[in-house]
Amino acid sequence: MHIREVKNLKSWIEVSPKHPFPVYNLPYGIGLFEDGTHSAVTRIGDFIINLSLLFQSGLLRADGLTLKHLAAEYLNDYIALPKATHLAVRERLIELFTDTHAGLYKLDEELKNSILVPHEKVKMLLPVKPGDYTDFYSSKEHATNVGIMFRGPENALMPNWLHMPIAYHGRSSSIVVSGTDLHRPWGQIVPPNAENPIFSPSKQLDFELEVAFVTRSGKPLGQPIKVDEAEEYIFGLVLFNDWSARDIQKWEYQPLGPFLGKNFGSTISPWIVTLEALEPFRCAGPTPEKELLPYLQTSGEKTFDIHLEVDIAPSDGKPTTVCRSNFKYLYWNMSQQLAHHTVNGCNIQAGDMMASGTISGPTPDSFGSMLELAWKGTKPVKLEDGSERTFILDGDTIIIRGYCEREDLYIGFGEATTTILPAIDY
Amino acid sequence: MHIREVKNLKSWIEVSPKHPFPVYNLPYGIGLFEDGTHSAVTRIGDFIINLSLLFQSGLLRADGLTLKHLAAEYLNDYIALPKATHLAVRERLIELFTDTHAGLYKLDEELKNSILVPHEKVKMLLPVKPGDYTDFYSSKEHATNVGIMFRGPENALMPNWLHMPIAYHGRSSSIVVSGTDLHRPWGQIVPPNAENPIFSPSKQLDFELEVAFVTRSGKPLGQPIKVDEAEEYIFGLVLFNDWSARDIQKWEYQPLGPFLGKNFGSTISPWIVTLEALEPFRCAGPTPEKELLPYLQTSGEKTFDIHLEVDIAPSDGKPTTVCRSNFKYLYWNMSQQLAHHTVNGCNIQAGDMMASGTISGPTPDSFGSMLELAWKGTKPVKLEDGSERTFILDGDTIIIRGYCEREDLYIGFGEATTTILPAIDY
Repeated sequence: MHIREVKNLKSWIEVSPKHPFPVYNLPYGIGLFEDGTHSAVTRIGDFIINLSLLFQSGLLRADGLTLKHLAAEYLNDYIALPKATHLAVRERLIELFTDTHAGLYKLDEELKNSILVPHEKVKMLLPVKPGDYTDFYSSKEHATNVGIMFRGPENALMPNWLHMPIAYHGRSSSIVVSGTDLHRPWGQIVPPNAENPIFSPSKQLDFELEVAFVTRSGKPLGQPIKVDEAEEYIFGLVLFNDWSARDIQKWEYQPLGPFLGKNFGSTISPWIVTLEALEPFRCAGPTPEKELLPYLQTSGEKTFDIHLEVDIAPSDGKPTTVCRSNFKYLYWNMSQQLAHHTVNGCNIQAGDMMASGTISGPTPDSFGSMLELAWKGTKPVKLEDGSERTFILDGDTIIIRGYCEREDLYIGFGEATTTILPAIDY
Repeated sequence: MHIREVKNLKSWIEVSPKHPFPVYNLPYGIGLFEDGTHSAVTRIGDFIINLSLLFQSGLLRADGLTLKHLAAEYLNDYIALPKATHLAVRERLIELFTDTHAGLYKLDEELKNSILVPHEKVKMLLPVKPGDYTDFYSSKEHATNVGIMFRGPENALMPNWLHMPIAYHGRSSSIVVSGTDLHRPWGQIVPPNAENPIFSPSKQLDFELEVAFVTRSGKPLGQPIKVDEAEEYIFGLVLFNDWSARDIQKWEYQPLGPFLGKNFGSTISPWIVTLEALEPFRCAGPTPEKELLPYLQTSGEKTFDIHLEVDIAPSDGKPTTVCRSNFKYLYWNMSQQLAHHTVNGCNIQAGDMMASGTISGPTPDSFGSMLELAWKGTKPVKLEDGSERTFILDGDTIIIRGYCEREDLYIGFGEATTTILPAIDY
């Protein structure tokens, strides 16, 4: 797929202008259908395409691809297929859905209607079961903001930050798909001016605007992935909300890092947008401020221009967009992240998830968390219904959106949406 | 199984005195047989018992148990069965292997020989595929030792340490079974008196003596496991060596905790010893020094008396035991760990692994890491071949052993053994 072809791609499925899912996008997800079956799916316009049934119809064939890769609960086994297979599937899907004579027209109406299903009839499930989930901390603006708030402007960035993409391991079991409600977490928090903790629902619940990449199969344990080959091991990207309870996190995180302040839930968008689809939006990231060790040196366009937005919708009000940021602001790119993660021989597996860390930009309206937007509670954020937020309230819905745009092409990630329910009775 | 019955349990398979695997133990593992099949297995004396073939012979039946639970690559699905099923299997195995007339005598010799296989003919594999791996930091002696070395005696324990079982998420993909060699990891380290990092193989490679518990299926996301019910969610225990590169860890760990200093490999013993087998060795742990929040309060005997030892064997020398410690020294017990881990609603899954953190005791010969044994390199440890160690050298083999002992009963965990290979050519 050459970039020059983009302009001419037009599906026979109607797709409105600025729709996130034109035929060029072809993201992957797992759909649950009204008959109780689940399948790998993609989407064009307002239609979900059941890839298992398309395969069974005989119209979708690729080396190594079998029904079990598609009629699966998760995409992990499909993702473990060689990249050449994925590229062949992409080419074939574009052929099938741009050329009215490429095959689907021959199917009888009933079969065609079981393959092409209106999106409102399909429930989107978690697309992968991540073996491991890693959260990076790759936005210099975010790390600086947090550093200023907690350690003052002189020591805002830790000495290691400009030398390596700092990261920690997160909890994969509590990663949920968009649309899953989460309860406000209980935990130990230390009230202002107190010495000892109390047991309480978090009073500082926050979102973190992130993007995560999903990995392909890696190398065996002990063999690093080099920075120049790293993109070969990336399947695609999702939106990621790394829910954080700041008060729980603050008390627990020394010396071993975040734990219960994070692992009560993380929300991802249901669609994995592939690196192939993102290719036209490739761009350069920030220039390193320090000379990097050779294993982290990259050149050229190693990141992507992805617009990101966060809305807060109160339970009885309309959404207010509180943040507009961009994936390209990240100081460390995905190639550097993956090279660093595996430099010691750590192995990765198909379907692992690696999140970017909060993506804050240079201006206050691009900060990717309430902690930064309301500057530690000192500058409440006004919503359109007149209410104010320093952190997230029960009943609030947080919507993360992502999209890429240029003159001749628009593709989107869809949404990662979560409503916060009150804490349970403990 | 009542404790009073222990004395009378005697298998018709010969078991030498102080053998780790008498018929009372019945640990679980995954074995790879000479014909290329793998299966859930247990062990009595020097024989491996192929549980798939025992099931197929018709002699092993329990509610909900099917062949697919046993003829599996990992024990996760078996562990997800109800506890009542596991107890029924245990009762039946004891019956089959203590009573010569309980069934096996009826099988023809060939079938019997395929079920009971000499242990040297079976390769033991990783017993579970952990969905998530958590590492606690529950030894007060270890946390204090590390604190003194890095922050001085006044601030040795962080203020939060006595209020909660501190933990962080680790990497599950790089957990390997005993007998798997590991390469010395590369990474960023800062030489003494330097400001900037260099890229180098770690010069401070260390073991950490730990024990991990393997969880049963938990509750849905959002529902905590209470401290009094926590043991119902624990399947069994393994030995755990949390390999650590101290120099990599030191430079990277602020502010988000350990990452590449740990995730290049962790070694576990192949046998999961069940809570049922450990029951006779139940004991009380240390008394809390601060009043705990109610969700962490336990009473009675909530831990186990498990002797632990670490040997270092140089490539051309015999092993020296450098550490003798005990699981019962841990300040925080497993019930507290699990209640804390889920108090915010974090969900656990069958086969998750939760390690204790380094288990150091009160005396210098009970410290569970080279960092402590050689006190940050200042007190080299002498080996029996006359050589000295401050950290682990290429070619060294580290052997962790665990066992429980009282007058009438001895059970063991076997070993977690790892040989360190030189760093790869990067």
